[in-house]
Amino acid sequence: MDPAKLRTLLDSVRQGQLDVDAAIGQLRDLPYSDLGYAMVDHHRALRQGVPEVIFGEGKTTEQILGIARAIVDHGATCFITRIDDDKAKRVLEVFPDARHAQLARCVTIARSPIAKKGTGTVAVIAAGTSDLPVAEEACETLAALGREHVRLYDVGVSGIHRLLMKREVLATASVLIVVAGMEGALPSVVGGLTDRPVIGVPTSVGYGAALGGLTPLAAMLTSCASGVTVVNIDNGFGAAFAAARMDR
Amino acid sequence: MDPAKLRTLLDSVRQGQLDVDAAIGQLRDLPYSDLGYAMVDHHRALRQGVPEVIFGEGKTTEQILGIARAIVDHGATCFITRIDDDKAKRVLEVFPDARHAQLARCVTIARSPIAKKGTGTVAVIAAGTSDLPVAEEACETLAALGREHVRLYDVGVSGIHRLLMKREVLATASVLIVVAGMEGALPSVVGGLTDRPVIGVPTSVGYGAALGGLTPLAAMLTSCASGVTVVNIDNGFGAAFAAARMDR
Amino acid sequence: MDPAKLRTLLDSVRQGQLDVDAAIGQLRDLPYSDLGYAMVDHHRALRQGVPEVIFGEGKTTEQILGIARAIVDHGATCFITRIDDDKAKRVLEVFPDARHAQLARCVTIARSPIAKKGTGTVAVIAAGTSDLPVAEEACETLAALGREHVRLYDVGVSGIHRLLMKREVLATASVLIVVAGMEGALPSVVGGLTDRPVIGVPTSVGYGAALGGLTPLAAMLTSCASGVTVVNIDNGFGAAFAAARMDR
Amino acid sequence: MDPAKLRTLLDSVRQGQLDVDAAIGQLRDLPYSDLGYAMVDHHRALRQGVPEVIFGEGKTTEQILGIARAIVDHGATCFITRIDDDKAKRVLEVFPDARHAQLARCVTIARSPIAKKGTGTVAVIAAGTSDLPVAEEACETLAALGREHVRLYDVGVSGIHRLLMKREVLATASVLIVVAGMEGALPSVVGGLTDRPVIGVPTSVGYGAALGGLTPLAAMLTSCASGVTVVNIDNGFGAAFAAARMDR
Amino acid sequence: MDPAKLRTLLDSVRQGQLDVDAAIGQLRDLPYSDLGYAMVDHHRALRQGVPEVIFGEGKTTEQILGIARAIVDHGATCFITRIDDDKAKRVLEVFPDARHAQLARCVTIARSPIAKKGTGTVAVIAAGTSDLPVAEEACETLAALGREHVRLYDVGVSGIHRLLMKREVLATASVLIVVAGMEGALPSVVGGLTDRPVIGVPTSVGYGAALGGLTPLAAMLTSCASGVTVVNIDNGFGAAFAAARMDR
Amino acid sequence: MDPAKLRTLLDSVRQGQLDVDAAIGQLRDLPYSDLGYAMVDHHRALRQGVPEVIFGEGKTTEQILGIARAIVDHGATCFITRIDDDKAKRVLEVFPDARHAQLARCVTIARSPIAKKGTGTVAVIAAGTSDLPVAEEACETLAALGREHVRLYDVGVSGIHRLLMKREVLATASVLIVVAGMEGALPSVVGGLTDRPVIGVPTSVGYGAALGGLTPLAAMLTSCASGVTVVNIDNGFGAAFAAARMDR
Amino acid sequence: MDPAKLRTLLDSVRQGQLDVDAAIGQLRDLPYSDLGYAMVDHHRALRQGVPEVIFGEGKTTEQILGIARAIVDHGATCFITRIDDDKAKRVLEVFPDARHAQLARCVTIARSPIAKKGTGTVAVIAAGTSDLPVAEEACETLAALGREHVRLYDVGVSGIHRLLMKREVLATASVLIVVAGMEGALPSVVGGLTDRPVIGVPTSVGYGAALGGLTPLAAMLTSCASGVTVVNIDNGFGAAFAAARMDR
Amino acid sequence: MDPAKLRTLLDSVRQGQLDVDAAIGQLRDLPYSDLGYAMVDHHRALRQGVPEVIFGEGKTTEQILGIARAIVDHGATCFITRIDDDKAKRVLEVFPDARHAQLARCVTIARSPIAKKGTGTVAVIAAGTSDLPVAEEACETLAALGREHVRLYDVGVSGIHRLLMKREVLATASVLIVVAGMEGALPSVVGGLTDRPVIGVPTSVGYGAALGGLTPLAAMLTSCASGVTVVNIDNGFGAAFAAARMDR
Repeated sequence: MDPAKLRTLLDSVRQGQLDVDAAIGQLRDLPYSDLGYAMVDHHRALRQGVPEVIFGEGKTTEQILGIARAIVDHGATCFITRIDDDKAKRVLEVFPDARHAQLARCVTIARSPIAKKGTGTVAVIAAGTSDLPVAEEACETLAALGREHVRLYDVGVSGIHRLLMKREVLATASVLIVVAGMEGALPSVVGGLTDRPVIGVPTSVGYGAALGGLTPLAAMLTSCASGVTVVNIDNGFGAAFAAARMDR
Repeated sequence: MDPAKLRTLLDSVRQGQLDVDAAIGQLRDLPYSDLGYAMVDHHRALRQGVPEVIFGEGKTTEQILGIARAIVDHGATCFITRIDDDKAKRVLEVFPDARHAQLARCVTIARSPIAKKGTGTVAVIAAGTSDLPVAEEACETLAALGREHVRLYDVGVSGIHRLLMKREVLATASVLIVVAGMEGALPSVVGGLTDRPVIGVPTSVGYGAALGGLTPLAAMLTSCASGVTVVNIDNGFGAAFAAARMDR
Repeated sequence: MDPAKLRTLLDSVRQGQLDVDAAIGQLRDLPYSDLGYAMVDHHRALRQGVPEVIFGEGKTTEQILGIARAIVDHGATCFITRIDDDKAKRVLEVFPDARHAQLARCVTIARSPIAKKGTGTVAVIAAGTSDLPVAEEACETLAALGREHVRLYDVGVSGIHRLLMKREVLATASVLIVVAGMEGALPSVVGGLTDRPVIGVPTSVGYGAALGGLTPLAAMLTSCASGVTVVNIDNGFGAAFAAARMDR
Repeated sequence: MDPAKLRTLLDSVRQGQLDVDAAIGQLRDLPYSDLGYAMVDHHRALRQGVPEVIFGEGKTTEQILGIARAIVDHGATCFITRIDDDKAKRVLEVFPDARHAQLARCVTIARSPIAKKGTGTVAVIAAGTSDLPVAEEACETLAALGREHVRLYDVGVSGIHRLLMKREVLATASVLIVVAGMEGALPSVVGGLTDRPVIGVPTSVGYGAALGGLTPLAAMLTSCASGVTVVNIDNGFGAAFAAARMDR
Repeated sequence: MDPAKLRTLLDSVRQGQLDVDAAIGQLRDLPYSDLGYAMVDHHRALRQGVPEVIFGEGKTTEQILGIARAIVDHGATCFITRIDDDKAKRVLEVFPDARHAQLARCVTIARSPIAKKGTGTVAVIAAGTSDLPVAEEACETLAALGREHVRLYDVGVSGIHRLLMKREVLATASVLIVVAGMEGALPSVVGGLTDRPVIGVPTSVGYGAALGGLTPLAAMLTSCASGVTVVNIDNGFGAAFAAARMDR
Repeated sequence: MDPAKLRTLLDSVRQGQLDVDAAIGQLRDLPYSDLGYAMVDHHRALRQGVPEVIFGEGKTTEQILGIARAIVDHGATCFITRIDDDKAKRVLEVFPDARHAQLARCVTIARSPIAKKGTGTVAVIAAGTSDLPVAEEACETLAALGREHVRLYDVGVSGIHRLLMKREVLATASVLIVVAGMEGALPSVVGGLTDRPVIGVPTSVGYGAALGGLTPLAAMLTSCASGVTVVNIDNGFGAAFAAARMDR
Repeated sequence: MDPAKLRTLLDSVRQGQLDVDAAIGQLRDLPYSDLGYAMVDHHRALRQGVPEVIFGEGKTTEQILGIARAIVDHGATCFITRIDDDKAKRVLEVFPDARHAQLARCVTIARSPIAKKGTGTVAVIAAGTSDLPVAEEACETLAALGREHVRLYDVGVSGIHRLLMKREVLATASVLIVVAGMEGALPSVVGGLTDRPVIGVPTSVGYGAALGGLTPLAAMLTSCASGVTVVNIDNGFGAAFAAARMDR
Repeated sequence: MDPAKLRTLLDSVRQGQLDVDAAIGQLRDLPYSDLGYAMVDHHRALRQGVPEVIFGEGKTTEQILGIARAIVDHGATCFITRIDDDKAKRVLEVFPDARHAQLARCVTIARSPIAKKGTGTVAVIAAGTSDLPVAEEACETLAALGREHVRLYDVGVSGIHRLLMKREVLATASVLIVVAGMEGALPSVVGGLTDRPVIGVPTSVGYGAALGGLTPLAAMLTSCASGVTVVNIDNGFGAAFAAARMDR
């Protein structure tokens, strides 16, 4: 319940148009309708300008399409992550203007151009070519959130010069998303080369002692570079969303 | 080697004052002296205005004092974390103007006032009273880094109203550091109540299935609130440093 | 051996119809036949009024049908969990009056109406839509056990108002089954909003640091809300059975 | 804000004694003051009749005494868990009428007799003598919560007859708290001998593959007896609190 | 090199038929050829009367057939474990007299009857029906090793009377192989009911906290019954082989 | 209730000295008194000739002495494991004829000579000198159980010849207890050199990746030698008890 | 930038052909172009004579072919690891002169003979036949790196004589690569029989407590033989590459 | 038995001085006495010129002194690792010419100068100051083994220039021992800057997600630099011993 509606209710009480018991009834749920940040998710989406997100994994094509239609009908941008090729193809048949980023496993359905937000450029840095699906998920999310971003790929620490040659990017990005599997060392090196926020994204790339991504995850959490923060394994979406929180 | 020195060198070559072989010799280490971000750490510290940090755990009082003296002699602010009461007492005997934050286990030796930085106020939120040492480490670090901050303590999720009564703080802080042990649920709830950057700090508070903090760590990494980032267990320092990166 | 049979035996000894050695032989297995709670499982089922349960996972269609026939022939209600669509279809061909709850992966074969039991209503609460199969397994089990129940879905902690709007349900349910994956924070919040028994059911929803459900499991076990109990990952059946134990 | 106060406020508005803007101001925080379950914890404690609980581990004697005084001054019963002998001795010096249960590591400060609650008797069952501290913590908690309880100790599964001789207790208790370390098998056997609620409490008793209690914890969670629920390792308090939720 | 051959060699040296250098050359490898227990595995097999064993998992049908032919050609009994239905069918086409135990996933190719060995009867005890493949692997192995054995199935601890009714078997078996998944409690109960050797075999039956069999494995290792020994998860073969070592 | 007493009871019924209701009453608890294996543990001990065992760890000196007195008063042999030097000294003051094996951390109080049992000699084999406390615990237990045993120490696999020189011992022992920490490889080598029962005992010797004994434990469980069984980490007592079960 | 180019640049400055600002511009990236070890990977490959390596797992046939063409076009040898049969077949269609080692899952495309390097022979030792794919990957890698190597297969520790008969190989190899799954004991035994470098390669062979190779990995790391080093699970390539570093 | 002794024996047989049965008796243990590498460890030590090593952890001062005396009496060099200050002081009282490296926790007792071995210089590289005890243990071991070595300390990857300035050392060392805790990234960077053997030594430096060294251990095992090998956590001794194997 917004202030205007509350004023109307109270005016009605004052003017005797609404008796006290009825007002108590109406105010009963006021705490929650009055919170404002709440209600249904697409309200928040519309208000904040962020797209509605569908996590596609484990959902049927029908479920995805159903949610997507509800979002698009509300005029919001719909952004689908973790969607495989077959389901994406079906979504594109229904929404021919949707954009499918195959490597990133994302589909964006935007009826109107996505407004640019943020004041800088987010750098998305990936250690190896196997990390690209996660890095691209971050890029697609940043695009859906209206954030400028730049890619810096295949700059793993065993060939440290490749990273050093790009140190201008590291120094000037508004936020740095650093994607790495295996030993997950890249955020530590990057963190030492910039004073900007660094978000580590461990990936499940690797085998054996890589433990499905737990090793780079733990490695990034114990980074010797101060002030590196970390998101879940393979969570390119989460890193991009966090970057958007940082560059409002 | 800064541009001015490089110009001087090249001028000397052009004017025949320095022969080519000698110039090659001098340029040999140029890559690294030219990088600028490098050399000894207190140079970086002085230039960036961040204090020199000593991680006190596992260091003897003598080692801590030795490093502290070197830092203070260079005119930098010295900030010591994870220092126990006995060692802190000795440090204060040597540096009577140092400030000891006992609960936070930190000592700050600042010969000149710490300049204010950043544009907003960082909120430090703690779930329970047992989490306070970690939360206070974050506060002390923010103070040493010149960042405004506000405390919001004992607002664990099993008494959710305590948090909800403070939602203005959540909505307006520049960054939110959320400290919680046990099930580590607080960042998820906070992340749903604000669009600002949220940094989760798991603590080793708890026993049994808390696994020394691994449970809240994993819980925060799998938060259902989008865009929460996480630092290592009990790492209040790292969270504050990350917050400073975010609010430059 | 029930008391009546024991009396008959002893009478026979007294009257000299049975000699002492023969009586010793017959009493040999008395401890166990006398226990009463034992024998074959459908005896217990019939006596206690609970249905016979078949855990379908890892059983062939033939095995499931064979056991189901034996149960139904004894006049008991047969309740099958973790049964996939193909096997369920075959069961329905044989038992056309069976009920298949597809999302819950359960089949109920009840030749007579299931008697209502318990004194209250069990609330089944789920954090996200991906948790619904587990929540529905709980609901189907409650139905098979004759317990009233109410659903409260999609009330995850990152949108805390959705849960708060339903606090009457939380306060009045006889038992609350709280289903959540990822960080598993929901039972902590629910536990703080009610003084009724709360059973946490972690789910395998999530990836990476969710560790296949171990993270919400550990999180629920370390809940900051006092008196929350927990069952195995994805064990909607077990939670419902426990709720039935609590609301006899 | 309770309904009576809300009526007064609205009456004031109707009668023109309070203008609309002032009423909006007063209603601003109504959601949370109106929730009722909230505010400070001892309010809840007094209203629900449960004692205030202090988790003693990691708190100094001064902190424990400070909190205890605040509770006792409010007229509530104070119950302290995980308190070692030295601290307990100090508490008893300050509160000479307090009761110290040494094995249970609990202190109860009750200025008035604790009212009996619940309708039945809770059975506290322990596998071995090493599990007694945890079992006794449960008993002390039950006493503080006003619940009748009975002890059944040293009935581990490797001497199964000891348990079987007590099957009447198992069959008639309102709730069964089953405490076991090592392989944690006791709740499975107990769960098969009763249809009452069974709460498993794994203990850290054992070495090597007992993994500090993780093995009995996991074993109880995978119990082959349907409907057993589990609390954290060594959490006798939590089990008793859960039993009190079940036997209101 | 056996003693007879060594005597011949030394005689040749003494008689001057073999010079010292040649003898040194021949004796060079004597340590190992003289050990006797060594050489190729089917020698050991033939001598000890145990069949040659092929672990079928991860081997192609061709590899299995090749090894089987070599064994059978040497006159030994060939015993294949962990072989799936398709491969077993192919083996039976080539060896029509082979015996395929489908549930046990074993094939036995014995050209001559397997001689009885051992002095007693090994009891193979299984907690639930899902544990039968592992229990049957043990039975098939015992058969191939010529050991008498008896089955005792579906005697899990949540229905303890079923086990107690069979206590004569427990008391008189030469060795007891106890197969159980989930919480793995059965060996503890059995170990308390007999003074014979008890071998626990954890199975991968279960889900979630059963951790693929690690939970019953750890539970059996921490059994409160003294003197229970344990083999690897699902290792029915190893348990039977160990039983044969015990009952020579 | 033993057969003689049962006969007396039934005779009394037959002769009319005991009426049927009274007999039913007396037979009520017959199952358990009739089981024979049950009642109090020292009954079993006396009957089977095994000593009463006290696990000393975590027990106070008073508790140990109390239990020891009860055992000795019953005429049984008392065997205490995991007892530290201070407590052992106190026990010896009370029982001057007790024997303290310091390295094994065991005390034996035997008022009469321990009768020899078993048909062979148990070999206790240890990989390194750090494993000796566990190996000696096994030896002391074997002595208390009346089993012949022989020590074979410091024969780790990195000096394989030391073991090979003792292969006669390996071939002729009735049971082999093989104690090893670190990589736990010794049981695999021993298992290949004998056809007798081999019991692996992993120890907590080692650091880092030895994981407190979990690594040798897992290594022994996956031994490439068929039919090796395993007990818990550092469980020399359990291995010896298992050996006694095997060599009855 | 190599010294020659740097001299040319400085000569140009001296002779006034290049002004100072332009020289500063050209020297800007000198640190990294001057490092020499850097640039693109095939430069390093060509210079050091090592082949370019493609890790085939997770790459499409098109990606593999694209990278392979680029390498071959540069005149370098292309070595592909972890490539399945179908993809290898396609590669051989495009590069008919390529060599496919099926068991090793490797393809080598060498347009010119690979030059022999190193001074000795690397021994590749495998415990069981299931370890051969990993051992063969090591052999293929050694071949691609121009290193002599010898195979020693099926010499697991449960048949220790098989290894001892080959002790000359162990004593004379330049480096020993020891491949073993299950309990991973072989490197310990080998390390005690040679003073040459020993590289342990754990494999994922085994089940249950083998933990997908983590058990032999941890076992090798805690080897009682001094100076054994270890690579990741199944990493035959890495072991061979390390051997080549050791035998330059 | 060495070849000379074998020749003597055979000559005696030939000349009739030793009859065949006696010769068989003497040859009985030949395999093992003939192996040469065997017998007691100090024989090997003396022959290979490596010192006898005592792992001091968990040994009493008396045990250490006893072994040390035996070694020194045989004329060998005695090298003690993991010895704390108090025990070292006692050793120095007995062996006044011993050398105690306090930070390395090592004592060396060399009655004669240690001969130089190897052809190059081993680089010992440490990431942070907390890693120095482990690095120094490696240095002391190298000294005891007669290997030249050079230290390169405090070159962690978050200040990458510090390492790059020393790239000559990396390129020219015979072997590189790289010591790092926390995220353990240093070996990956070093491995990319040299073609020499790189041995990673993870340390237990760090907290929380560092998991006592398991994180850098796993990180090093999954290094993106090819051919890095790894030793156990904190195992500076093992790394140095491996380096000595590599640089014979």
